[in-house]
Amino acid sequence: MTLRYYHGPALANGLKSMIPLLEKDLPYESVYIDLHKFEQHDPWFLKINPEGQVPVLDHDGVILNHSTVINEYLEDVFADRPLRPRNPVGAAHMRYWNKFLDEHFLNYVSIHGWHRMIGPIARAVESHEFERLMERIPLPDQRRKWRAARAGFNQADLDYATEKVAFAIDKVERQLGETAWLAGADYTLADINLFASGAINLELSFPQLVTRERCPRLLAWREKMRARPAVKLAVAGGRAAAART
Amino acid sequence: MTLRYYHGPALANGLKSMIPLLEKDLPYESVYIDLHKFEQHDPWFLKINPEGQVPVLDHDGVILNHSTVINEYLEDVFADRPLRPRNPVGAAHMRYWNKFLDEHFLNYVSIHGWHRMIGPIARAVESHEFERLMERIPLPDQRRKWRAARAGFNQADLDYATEKVAFAIDKVERQLGETAWLAGADYTLADINLFASGAINLELSFPQLVTRERCPRLLAWREKMRARPAVKLAVAGGRAAAART
Repeated sequence: MTLRYYHGPALANGLKSMIPLLEKDLPYESVYIDLHKFEQHDPWFLKINPEGQVPVLDHDGVILNHSTVINEYLEDVFADRPLRPRNPVGAAHMRYWNKFLDEHFLNYVSIHGWHRMIGPIARAVESHEFERLMERIPLPDQRRKWRAARAGFNQADLDYATEKVAFAIDKVERQLGETAWLAGADYTLADINLFASGAINLELSFPQLVTRERCPRLLAWREKMRARPAVKLAVAGGRAAAART
Repeated sequence: MTLRYYHGPALANGLKSMIPLLEKDLPYESVYIDLHKFEQHDPWFLKINPEGQVPVLDHDGVILNHSTVINEYLEDVFADRPLRPRNPVGAAHMRYWNKFLDEHFLNYVSIHGWHRMIGPIARAVESHEFERLMERIPLPDQRRKWRAARAGFNQADLDYATEKVAFAIDKVERQLGETAWLAGADYTLADINLFASGAINLELSFPQLVTRERCPRLLAWREKMRARPAVKLAVAGGRAAAART
């Protein structure tokens, strides 16, 4: 059995599927894709994932992409050390949160992250080269995002994203007043999603929202997350990347 | 065992969870929520779903919302007549498509549907009454959508939505050139999602996109969908609604 995990930095979606691999103690080959060099749009990588996105999991030749989908797959195949409740109601709660985070949190955290970090990278590329790089991006929305990062996201989009993140923080805070973990009594993929999708370092973009007054339970929950050995290892980059052949 | 299904018209998310109930031949009580009367925001309904959204499934007192989550739950609990592949790779393909449709199709079809159908309803409500109704809506995005429908969606948003739907149509068309059903050899929740989320009557908003030249396979697939007895019954409204007490 071979698992090969193609991923960028230990952030966002890349972190999201790495934590389950480590929680389950699954041996995997790490293949680091350098997003600063736009390797995710290189022809060799597009043969693996035509969408030109990471992470990707290759399990004995079966290619899986999208971290939420990968994580459910890992539960289906490697049922030991479950991160998805075995009772259907618990699984439904977990999926409710995954869906909420995927649709109403990650992308809004991401806009601010791109604004801060990808904007300068995109602006450092000379115009002609930038257009050449854009042509290699398979997904139109992803091209749009790169162009917006280069030009600077407009303030209305940034403000809306902040509102969405504030809404998510308050919703999570209420939930953690009722249950120990996000989807109930057990640590699940929903916690991993929340952590990786932005809770890990939410202060960087939203210092005004992440305060002991507004979300004390979220901050306490995050300490529990950070204390988990698998999470620590994932945040440090996971297993060492294999040499690329 | 009691299943009670709260739903609006046999369209979009309401249709999406009704088809599996009927495919699995599960007895359920139908509770029709009149969206034209804004019943989904009535206090009695908010006690059932604080988000003020339909559909909702009540299974012996356990409340589930969001049609994609409900449908996975039905697979977990009622494993006969499966609509989710039992092999993990097939399930992953199904979830890949569900995620794509939930994030990149449904909402964009929906904007045009709201523009055509909800706009006139929203504009027919007197201003003071409209504000009172808005105050009852729990989700900020949903309030935004009602206000946009009343004012008229802006052309840039409508154009972007059309682009997204065109992209989805072409992606589906390519897939149906490779597999008999959307997620592979078997009929799954992904087909039900595509059908209910918009394929059912895509011509209404996008006559220029739905042509025998552009998407012949999609149209042939849709005929197969429409020929299924459970789909026929669902499109006709499903089981008769119970009297509300």
